[in-house]
Amino acid sequence: MQVSFSPDEIASMVQPRLRRGSTAEIVRGIAGLDTAGPGDLSFLGNAKYRQQVPKSRASVILLPAGYEGDPAPGQLFFEVDNPSLALARVCTRIEQTLWPRPAPGIHRSAFVAPGASVSSKATVGPLCVVEDGASVGGGSHLQAQVFIGRGARVGADCWLMPGSIVTAECILHDRVRLNPGCVVGSEGFGYEFVAGRHEKLPQVGFVEIASDVEIGAGTTLDRARFSRTYVGEGTKIDNLVQVAHNVVIGRHCLICAQVGISGSTTLEDYVVLGGQAGLVGHVTVGKGTKVGAQAGINRDIEPGSVVNGTPCLPYMLERRIVALQHRLPEFFQRLKALEDAAGGSGKSV
Amino acid sequence: MQVSFSPDEIASMVQPRLRRGSTAEIVRGIAGLDTAGPGDLSFLGNAKYRQQVPKSRASVILLPAGYEGDPAPGQLFFEVDNPSLALARVCTRIEQTLWPRPAPGIHRSAFVAPGASVSSKATVGPLCVVEDGASVGGGSHLQAQVFIGRGARVGADCWLMPGSIVTAECILHDRVRLNPGCVVGSEGFGYEFVAGRHEKLPQVGFVEIASDVEIGAGTTLDRARFSRTYVGEGTKIDNLVQVAHNVVIGRHCLICAQVGISGSTTLEDYVVLGGQAGLVGHVTVGKGTKVGAQAGINRDIEPGSVVNGTPCLPYMLERRIVALQHRLPEFFQRLKALEDAAGGSGKSV
Amino acid sequence: MQVSFSPDEIASMVQPRLRRGSTAEIVRGIAGLDTAGPGDLSFLGNAKYRQQVPKSRASVILLPAGYEGDPAPGQLFFEVDNPSLALARVCTRIEQTLWPRPAPGIHRSAFVAPGASVSSKATVGPLCVVEDGASVGGGSHLQAQVFIGRGARVGADCWLMPGSIVTAECILHDRVRLNPGCVVGSEGFGYEFVAGRHEKLPQVGFVEIASDVEIGAGTTLDRARFSRTYVGEGTKIDNLVQVAHNVVIGRHCLICAQVGISGSTTLEDYVVLGGQAGLVGHVTVGKGTKVGAQAGINRDIEPGSVVNGTPCLPYMLERRIVALQHRLPEFFQRLKALEDAAGGSGKSV
Repeated sequence: MQVSFSPDEIASMVQPRLRRGSTAEIVRGIAGLDTAGPGDLSFLGNAKYRQQVPKSRASVILLPAGYEGDPAPGQLFFEVDNPSLALARVCTRIEQTLWPRPAPGIHRSAFVAPGASVSSKATVGPLCVVEDGASVGGGSHLQAQVFIGRGARVGADCWLMPGSIVTAECILHDRVRLNPGCVVGSEGFGYEFVAGRHEKLPQVGFVEIASDVEIGAGTTLDRARFSRTYVGEGTKIDNLVQVAHNVVIGRHCLICAQVGISGSTTLEDYVVLGGQAGLVGHVTVGKGTKVGAQAGINRDIEPGSVVNGTPCLPYMLERRIVALQHRLPEFFQRLKALEDAAGGSGKSV
Repeated sequence: MQVSFSPDEIASMVQPRLRRGSTAEIVRGIAGLDTAGPGDLSFLGNAKYRQQVPKSRASVILLPAGYEGDPAPGQLFFEVDNPSLALARVCTRIEQTLWPRPAPGIHRSAFVAPGASVSSKATVGPLCVVEDGASVGGGSHLQAQVFIGRGARVGADCWLMPGSIVTAECILHDRVRLNPGCVVGSEGFGYEFVAGRHEKLPQVGFVEIASDVEIGAGTTLDRARFSRTYVGEGTKIDNLVQVAHNVVIGRHCLICAQVGISGSTTLEDYVVLGGQAGLVGHVTVGKGTKVGAQAGINRDIEPGSVVNGTPCLPYMLERRIVALQHRLPEFFQRLKALEDAAGGSGKSV
Repeated sequence: MQVSFSPDEIASMVQPRLRRGSTAEIVRGIAGLDTAGPGDLSFLGNAKYRQQVPKSRASVILLPAGYEGDPAPGQLFFEVDNPSLALARVCTRIEQTLWPRPAPGIHRSAFVAPGASVSSKATVGPLCVVEDGASVGGGSHLQAQVFIGRGARVGADCWLMPGSIVTAECILHDRVRLNPGCVVGSEGFGYEFVAGRHEKLPQVGFVEIASDVEIGAGTTLDRARFSRTYVGEGTKIDNLVQVAHNVVIGRHCLICAQVGISGSTTLEDYVVLGGQAGLVGHVTVGKGTKVGAQAGINRDIEPGSVVNGTPCLPYMLERRIVALQHRLPEFFQRLKALEDAAGGSGKSV
């Protein structure tokens, strides 16, 4: 990571409301408050770390507006509306040096079928495969060892990282980002039990990914049994998530790592699923619902719900029940005491 | 998905018991009852969706024998024994156009070691690797970017999708299907703790996959510490499943997504594991057992069991205990009332 | 697996304390006690299988010192301090024939960018990609279809199995082993919610893997938002594990399959995480802690803890609470009996 920004350059990126203190250092790195040293930029993005600010040796610190402490000598504070977003603006600049825009063209080691259509403004990196009838739009980057199946369509300005896979007939709209090893369009898991064997239900649908979707490493999305599996605009999916056939995911959802969504289930817009949550098939999770980590969703969920636990309950009720479960030893003792007072049941706890 | 079938062609595929109504449309797509329009084929595969039939605009609908409603004008009903299986017959036809049988031969961009043996009737697609001593049987298709390790054997009529990996010495029998990114033969996770470090136990066994097995995207099967990890005939494994070293899986099992099976555990035939279930090592799950989603199996399970929860319990008992847990707030209040009536314990709930 | 060892060769590898009985067989395979036959080596590695020893037909058995039974005719017992480790010594010899050390050099089908630096003692196998500015140390083996991103560094004597991926700027120290399909350096999952959309927080840090680390198939490690995600020396990570951005993992940890670790969480040294456990972000798990399978860690954990359950509790307490939960039906009956004796509450269970 090559970083070299003057304090004024940082200021032009983060547009501070207030600037306090000063430093002679050039910013050459970014670090957490506790590990930063001279030349580092740091930030207070989570109130949990507030007590680390006075001890931090960072040269420049991004702080929420109204932060009360003072900078140390040689230290510069920028007060901003949202320190995390402000840092993101700096990182966006760094990102451009980390992943410079590749030159368009098809690498000589890639295999692009004669019947495929690759924009002259797209980049197809080394050892990629683009099958017959597939298309790749302008500004899109297939980094290396990417697979695009027959008749699949990749829109404009997508980034498909190494080893990502898009199978036949699947559709990616614009600015979609697939992390390494992500699979779009594996076969749905559908069988009928006939005469002692699982007879395959062919999976002839596809997967459609709307614009501005990002999908994590190793995540798998199954093609529909027929018609489509769908991911709506702006939704972000983390690593190692399973999305089964005919699932429909709305716009601007957040799906954390290792979630599993069973077949034909629908997420409406703005749903948030915590890590390792599991959803049965054929249910609908209403708009804006938040699901806790490791929760098990076994029924339709009303819009705006906050649920937790397996099987899931409204969040506050689930918290209360867990607290009561932890008091079961006490509870059994109290029951026993009542029984003893009433003449005893003869049962011990 | 190119679809174009006359109603009579559909009839010849699904062999209806009864045909009611008629349509002038050619079937050009398949859709769910609620989203289908003219030219679409639909089906009633799950009683949950029964009320959608009268409102459906599909031109042709596959229905269970004895369905009582009448078709709309221009709509055709086919009554069949199993609408889902009947639809599968249509999809099988569509599948042949989606994935036409590839011509045999080795793509010029593939690397096949001189000591490998590839049938003249097999297809090795672009950028595949077949190491020394490996063999690939007739009718098998290594689609693209597939890896076959030293001495591994792939039987006849297998389909290895892009990015699937079979490491050294592993064996696939016939008609095995590996979804994209599936790994057969990663190293087992075995260490002994010696002098403050985890000393590796070399994993020198292999994985053997019987005929008619299908394995999902991103699923990993570890090679045995010695001898073999085994998957029995006709078993189907979904995406992102972990199968540890020396696991033995019987015939015709169904293993849903994100299940984890620890080392040396045995599944007998016809076991069904719900999504995200976890199994400890060195236990046996008896024939025909059904395990609920997210369940935790920590002991041997008798054949024919239905279990749920972590740690697992018989299904009906688990359901009852969950229901009682949800009544804990009431329960504590009742306990408190009894204590108050008896003179009070001084504890509040 | 080619095996052919005389009993004396086995003895020289396992260094027995005591040798009892004798066999004329050459050891040609390794098998479990119950499935072994003449010519097989077996071992008693887990007391659970003790009763299988007298019935075993193995020609040579590795047993713990002080084992009381006698060998059958034609059977040889070796008593050793640790039968599992002793077996490992034999398997190490077998491993060398399974995966012979490859000749150094770059396969003609690999793509190594002109600005990359590959040691003359490294092996870059077929269809690998090494981007500009990356380096690969002596004795390291990129087996096939491996990706090394711009500026990434791979140390000495590493083994990167087929389809493993190391993205830009990530660092592997020496003797690191990546299983197939493992991803080092996917993008961290970080967004800020702004005006109804999830705005991306660029992830410009890297992943650093210390020496002697092994990482399982399909496991994903996200690059840091800034600075680094870190895995300490000697730690072993199983398959399909998710390690989020800015996680710090100590030395000699064991992380079982399908564990998920959320962002900025720290594991101190010698932590053991059971399969499918999940950890929230921004917490610290103290040195030597053991976490049960499927547990949910939602807070800091003191060093040396043993915890289980979701949300996690001290192990013995969690076991007790689970046992009491299973007695809830009885508990409700006893409550009802007290109520009836006191005049009844009118509620039924």
